[in-house]
Amino acid sequence: MPVLNPADDAFLEALSARLPDDTLRPAEPRYLEEPRGRYRVQTGVVALPRSTADVAAIIRAAADARVGIVPYGGGTGLVGGQVAITGRPLILSLERMRAVRAIHAEENVLICEAGATLAEVQAAAEEAERLFPLSLASEGTARIGGILATNAGGVNVLRYGNARDLCLGLEVVMPDGSIWNGLRRLRKDNTGYDLRHLMIGAEGTLGVITAASLRLFPRPAARGAALMAVPDPAAALALLAMAGASVGAGLSAFELIHRQGPEFLREVMPDIRQPFDEPPEWMVLIDLGLGRGQNPAAALEELFAEAFEAGLVTDGVVAQNEAQRAAFWTLREAIPEANRRIGAISSHDISLPLGAVPDFLQRAAPALSEIGDFRINCFGHLGDGNLHYNVFPQHGRNRANHEAERPAIKRCVHDLVHSLGGSVSAEHGIGRLKVEDLERYGDPVKLRAMRAIKAALDPAGIMNPGAVLRA
Amino acid sequence: MPVLNPADDAFLEALSARLPDDTLRPAEPRYLEEPRGRYRVQTGVVALPRSTADVAAIIRAAADARVGIVPYGGGTGLVGGQVAITGRPLILSLERMRAVRAIHAEENVLICEAGATLAEVQAAAEEAERLFPLSLASEGTARIGGILATNAGGVNVLRYGNARDLCLGLEVVMPDGSIWNGLRRLRKDNTGYDLRHLMIGAEGTLGVITAASLRLFPRPAARGAALMAVPDPAAALALLAMAGASVGAGLSAFELIHRQGPEFLREVMPDIRQPFDEPPEWMVLIDLGLGRGQNPAAALEELFAEAFEAGLVTDGVVAQNEAQRAAFWTLREAIPEANRRIGAISSHDISLPLGAVPDFLQRAAPALSEIGDFRINCFGHLGDGNLHYNVFPQHGRNRANHEAERPAIKRCVHDLVHSLGGSVSAEHGIGRLKVEDLERYGDPVKLRAMRAIKAALDPAGIMNPGAVLRA
Repeated sequence: MPVLNPADDAFLEALSARLPDDTLRPAEPRYLEEPRGRYRVQTGVVALPRSTADVAAIIRAAADARVGIVPYGGGTGLVGGQVAITGRPLILSLERMRAVRAIHAEENVLICEAGATLAEVQAAAEEAERLFPLSLASEGTARIGGILATNAGGVNVLRYGNARDLCLGLEVVMPDGSIWNGLRRLRKDNTGYDLRHLMIGAEGTLGVITAASLRLFPRPAARGAALMAVPDPAAALALLAMAGASVGAGLSAFELIHRQGPEFLREVMPDIRQPFDEPPEWMVLIDLGLGRGQNPAAALEELFAEAFEAGLVTDGVVAQNEAQRAAFWTLREAIPEANRRIGAISSHDISLPLGAVPDFLQRAAPALSEIGDFRINCFGHLGDGNLHYNVFPQHGRNRANHEAERPAIKRCVHDLVHSLGGSVSAEHGIGRLKVEDLERYGDPVKLRAMRAIKAALDPAGIMNPGAVLRA
Repeated sequence: MPVLNPADDAFLEALSARLPDDTLRPAEPRYLEEPRGRYRVQTGVVALPRSTADVAAIIRAAADARVGIVPYGGGTGLVGGQVAITGRPLILSLERMRAVRAIHAEENVLICEAGATLAEVQAAAEEAERLFPLSLASEGTARIGGILATNAGGVNVLRYGNARDLCLGLEVVMPDGSIWNGLRRLRKDNTGYDLRHLMIGAEGTLGVITAASLRLFPRPAARGAALMAVPDPAAALALLAMAGASVGAGLSAFELIHRQGPEFLREVMPDIRQPFDEPPEWMVLIDLGLGRGQNPAAALEELFAEAFEAGLVTDGVVAQNEAQRAAFWTLREAIPEANRRIGAISSHDISLPLGAVPDFLQRAAPALSEIGDFRINCFGHLGDGNLHYNVFPQHGRNRANHEAERPAIKRCVHDLVHSLGGSVSAEHGIGRLKVEDLERYGDPVKLRAMRAIKAALDPAGIMNPGAVLRA
């Protein structure tokens, strides 16, 4: 890739003259660092366009001047995709472009601009008596553009899929400033290469998503949830299969929670209500959304009885109303916040073939104990084989005490995941944090194809330089 | 693109020496024409490799010699993607590579080679007490490689998605003969550009799919189906929304059938049982798959009562057992065969935003009647906005009488579809038949990106030359 130029005063002045007033301004700190504090720069300039035409003008100018562009969504990404630490690129935030352009409720389609937050899209769908099912802890801040660029996952993937599965079409400003108008509302469209799926998950390295056509769903008429204690992860998997067979397509989430999560909550968020007096070693949170006239609580009680009979569960609580269901989810959703307060030495967003999950869990902890004495909080979306396997210091110590061990910890976890056919980035993406992991674990033929595609679509290498692929 | 060399004797001899015995042979007629007879060549040579390594050797040799490769699946494609009429390329059939390499029933994953037929995969899933839900009329012949290369659709897309949605990973021989091993069993994997989705739907122009990792599902515990007569397409759409709200995720198919279909069946397939004495102007076939203890027939009867009340249906039959359900599907699945026997002047595989379907249907017939006097058989997957809108001669005439009108008919239908935001190829792909349509209706920025990707991954242009993009 050719060397890029910085977004210097001359470039910014010339660009500013071509854009509406106040489109460019010095970047506040929130644009210059990311949640885990691993990537941070001192200064920068952020462009805040109001229209797709503005975005196109910005990118055209950057392409002409060979200046890097770093797309910034809600800033919630956990792999440093939104913060470039070298080269003084221009930061591009679409936060002023958050309109819901159209809702076609009868078609279950919503079209919005990329700056809309996930919560805004969920609310717009709700107002139209529909469901936009993507749900994740940062939904109040994360924006649709970033969510699609990183192919975000979350808790409802089991039933509704990842972000890419919820997108029917895109509007994208390409690396040369041209605009691809692919905002279709179609469920089937086999007219050429699937550029949409290429842009989704490319983390802003192949273009900037400016708007999206999203799938909505009927709201489940009846919802329910249960927490069930399981003897071990293998039992959790058997319970997952049992639930799939008995409640079928109504199963919307199946979350695994290790005891360490509730224990962290007691330590740093004692107000969170916990349903078990003594947290079980492992539990699962099961969520159902059923059709009219069906009874989720009864279905969950029946599932519990059948599973108890089979020795797959030892204890359980079925939500008797929506408030109880919400309380179960509050418990689950508070775990990432508790993790932040405790301070992980190393976090791992991994996925495994479902059948390999028990083997991984059996082998990872002993392997890590050879590196040091840690607490491990494992939780996540077992239904998708996606675990957040995070390593913490023992009580009384902190992550700074373990900085030196971090590379070995990461390597240990990722090597094991890779050897079992898993992925070292299930839902967070590559960003800048995992570029080396991708080079180490990625298929070399795929990597070569990725580099060829990048060079073909972004020959100057201006789009999010250094993310996903080495600049 | 550079000019390709023919697969001449010198090339074939040299290649043959590098491959196991009998890998190459003169192509029988089935490899040289396609179902609708629009593309046909006199002679050719077909390569029948037994392993991915053989495929890689063939493609490497073709790349070195700049000889074109035409991947051939089951030969059931309807857009000429499997027959190259110029340049004497080598035909590549994976019919000897049909092994099911692994079934992970507890993970709902099946890994098979690309030459397995869809029916073979369905049967293997069934044997493991699972469902592979893709279903289409040619399933006994169509092979997984072709199904993925064309992103086939079929009758269960509403619930389970298109072929791409059912694929977790791929093994692909790239245009330089290298092998991408992407046969993952993961539900979530955000490690770089989604090469899988780029290969799916690329119709063999970016590489050859040699194996795939496919998603299985629990078999619905209880199935049901109903035929309901609706006053018009708008009522059918309202009924679709009502069904979504009442039965939720259990809705697996929602097929629209115009009276012309049953009338064609009476004409050329009189043995097919028809449930209504007089076929209604429009009817829908609704299929449900529900969980244990649920009663699909009762759910459908309830839906019928509610819809009748609302004036959305005028008559209906609910299948009381699996044999009746099968009979409904036999009726639906026989329509394409009846169409073949009657002989369409022009067939259109279109999709529309759901809300635009009634408008399209109201406007298309009068527009066509200005070109000539035709019979129109419209049927298809209304739940996906996908219609097969096929134009036939009046009784006593045949398609040969109307050859001159074919381009005008096609243009009339496609212009209207395009103006309504629809697609001129919903599930069949571009092949060679629709290259001009893609150029006419496709977004120019997307087309430019497609050409750049093709040139980047297949610089010699050997992979299925002339399909999708002009060679």
